[in-house]
Amino acid sequence: MKHCLAALLLTAAPAPLLAQAAAPPAPIAVDPKVAALRDAALDDDYAWGITEGLTTEVGQRLAGSPAEARARAWAVAKLFAMGFSNIRIETFPVQTGTRGIERAEIIAPFPQALVVNALGGSGLTGPEGVTGEIVAFDSVDALRLAPDSVVRGKIVFVDHHMPANQDGSGYGQFGAPRRQGPTLASKKGAIAIVIRSIGTDHNRTPHTGVMTFSDGAKPIPAGALSIPDAEQLLRILKRGKPVTMRLRLEGTHKMGTSGNVIAEVPGRDLSLPPILVGGHLDSWDLGTGAIDDAAGVAIATAAAKRIMDAGRPLRTIRIVWFGSEEIGLFGGEDYRAKYGKQPHYAMLESDFGADKIYKVDSKLGDARKTEAEAIGRALAPLGIVTGKYDEADGSDIGPMLADGLPGVGLSQDGTRYFDLHHTPDDTLDKIDPVQLRQNVAAWTAVLGVLSGGIEEPKARKRR
Amino acid sequence: MKHCLAALLLTAAPAPLLAQAAAPPAPIAVDPKVAALRDAALDDDYAWGITEGLTTEVGQRLAGSPAEARARAWAVAKLFAMGFSNIRIETFPVQTGTRGIERAEIIAPFPQALVVNALGGSGLTGPEGVTGEIVAFDSVDALRLAPDSVVRGKIVFVDHHMPANQDGSGYGQFGAPRRQGPTLASKKGAIAIVIRSIGTDHNRTPHTGVMTFSDGAKPIPAGALSIPDAEQLLRILKRGKPVTMRLRLEGTHKMGTSGNVIAEVPGRDLSLPPILVGGHLDSWDLGTGAIDDAAGVAIATAAAKRIMDAGRPLRTIRIVWFGSEEIGLFGGEDYRAKYGKQPHYAMLESDFGADKIYKVDSKLGDARKTEAEAIGRALAPLGIVTGKYDEADGSDIGPMLADGLPGVGLSQDGTRYFDLHHTPDDTLDKIDPVQLRQNVAAWTAVLGVLSGGIEEPKARKRR
Repeated sequence: MKHCLAALLLTAAPAPLLAQAAAPPAPIAVDPKVAALRDAALDDDYAWGITEGLTTEVGQRLAGSPAEARARAWAVAKLFAMGFSNIRIETFPVQTGTRGIERAEIIAPFPQALVVNALGGSGLTGPEGVTGEIVAFDSVDALRLAPDSVVRGKIVFVDHHMPANQDGSGYGQFGAPRRQGPTLASKKGAIAIVIRSIGTDHNRTPHTGVMTFSDGAKPIPAGALSIPDAEQLLRILKRGKPVTMRLRLEGTHKMGTSGNVIAEVPGRDLSLPPILVGGHLDSWDLGTGAIDDAAGVAIATAAAKRIMDAGRPLRTIRIVWFGSEEIGLFGGEDYRAKYGKQPHYAMLESDFGADKIYKVDSKLGDARKTEAEAIGRALAPLGIVTGKYDEADGSDIGPMLADGLPGVGLSQDGTRYFDLHHTPDDTLDKIDPVQLRQNVAAWTAVLGVLSGGIEEPKARKRR
Repeated sequence: MKHCLAALLLTAAPAPLLAQAAAPPAPIAVDPKVAALRDAALDDDYAWGITEGLTTEVGQRLAGSPAEARARAWAVAKLFAMGFSNIRIETFPVQTGTRGIERAEIIAPFPQALVVNALGGSGLTGPEGVTGEIVAFDSVDALRLAPDSVVRGKIVFVDHHMPANQDGSGYGQFGAPRRQGPTLASKKGAIAIVIRSIGTDHNRTPHTGVMTFSDGAKPIPAGALSIPDAEQLLRILKRGKPVTMRLRLEGTHKMGTSGNVIAEVPGRDLSLPPILVGGHLDSWDLGTGAIDDAAGVAIATAAAKRIMDAGRPLRTIRIVWFGSEEIGLFGGEDYRAKYGKQPHYAMLESDFGADKIYKVDSKLGDARKTEAEAIGRALAPLGIVTGKYDEADGSDIGPMLADGLPGVGLSQDGTRYFDLHHTPDDTLDKIDPVQLRQNVAAWTAVLGVLSGGIEEPKARKRR
């Protein structure tokens, strides 16, 4: 609780420590109301309640599936029970599917089964699978340089060397085998592709994730091996004998319905642009989507609820639980098509787990530099560094930020995020309640600054 | 490398540090030959070679399966290449099986799939599975106390509270749900049982393991939920609504062939009883059996090889890679039936992973106390505590130790052992090569003491 103590020292004391009679009053670094809301949020239970409830009572909620529909119903009931206004579901169609039997068998030289899961958008096989010789590449760049003749008729394996970084920066570069590998392999005539899971753990739980066949590439079966299985395949390949694999990725593709769930804390001046806070409601089908992204919708919603509990903000806070983020940011796209041309005071999205926030960036424009600095000062007692003033990001809101809408980005520590991301291991037990509360405190502080001031409810008349 | 330095100080210096001219020579705490062999083993590569080779070139090797037969062939080739003598396979029949589709679905109140694996010896279902209401117990004791009427026609869930202890002591007490739960549930009329996996991790990879229906109990489907899934089920149950599960544990049971692989380092006096060193060759089918027990056979064999490299021991060292340990200690039983009445100088088995050895116990008898103490002194520089003089254990050799045969027990640190034990995650990447070498050094030192002295090979004649 040293954060709290530091906050008290900075904000609550009207005079500096060791004050002398003649000294002027200390400048107020942070609005005392904002500081108090922030510190109270270190005892938050709302975010845990949402995270635990959604992952337990719905579990996995693949975009476009009946489970995602149940999640929307759950969300509406929860947001209503919490007292939010203007609750609505906005649906849109998406392509979805179901996972069948998935197996990667080494036929020769050392018969054994490897653990594999299909990537989102993979071609499917029947029960007979596809059988072929493995041709291995250390990276997507190596695959790109290979002549077609080396790849044609084979099953491509692509390795990578992703590190676990606090800022999650490994994912961009080292996610290439998943994003580009299948198209490259298909265009060179491969009959299938398996990649080392895009992750940083050593569990036998593959990391799925979306990919699309572009440039007219024909869909082929595309799977992720768990990292221990990818390393096993590499050891087998190093023996120098031809390696034959039979790959089964059964399942179905079909159309389904997805949707965004929206709720609001109405502001005192409804003519002002709203502050959008969100996360995504859908998850991959392997885990229960605790870090990705039940925690995200929970943090955003808990912070909005804490502001609402304190009184009425000047500006409306709009909560969006986006659908179908995982399979292509379709919830963000739907919102953007409907509301993206309207002014927003700021957009914030939480979609990187629930470990402690260590940095705040913002892109509010030069005219609002003072406000951006105030956000930084309000967060400093939580151990949060102020980063850039011309940057903010988010998955669903990313295209709208790129369009020029203002935003604030609160960066979670991602060191262990890619141990769990898109795997069966993304479950509630991976959420640290103490760090989750630090997230809520940070979000509450930011909303406190952005809100334009919170008017406390009038005292009730005594009977 | 402080172990090495300490060893040199204790053993290699002919005179004590700060020696004075008149002081007597320091007592020799450890035979310098033994100390030198021990310290050289801290650079061992044999054990890694066996562990890496067996897990890569064979992978899983379920007792009685074709994979276990390939493992025996692999073992014979490896032991031959390493230069051991009297190599042979001794086969015996066992009941084995194959795993089919395994799924635990919550039908109501919150539809979702949980991750489950059948326990060894489980009853099987067809594709339709069995469907029933869950009745949950916090322990096997609670299940035992329940009236039959509470259990009849239901699917039993049994929880536990196993801690991760260095000495692995949680496994005995908290393994009861697996060992006793299925029989108790069956006799009370349950249609199936699922347990919290007997483990200490939070991965979605269940821990299988053997159990048998005793007391005439009818076999029922018996599965282990991964620990996050068991916790999910508990959260669902806490909502207070009836919980319905559909459990599918498909597979087959059939007879197969298992066997022990035996090799020797012949001693100079073949009339003396042999020293038995071993581990088990079979593994569960989910992982590649790296910690359980490729590392075990590797450590025992590497130590014997290092003695053989140094010269000829007085006593024969007999290496046994037991078959079918996992499904009922059948390899140990077969060896016991054939050789258990013959004298053995000592028995040692490695079957608790490859993390550092922290304790040595022995049961060599009062007449050999001096030898037992010498073992303790030889191991102290490796950071190994001397424990009891009237105790030794081992899985396959356990019944023979109980019969009265002498033994030495080298205890590995088991703190993380039950994170991996009997799961798909038991793979090569979990072996720490540095700690593996400490194991080999300890085993080499013990064999050095027990060997009765190693005669170096005569110098070859010059041409």
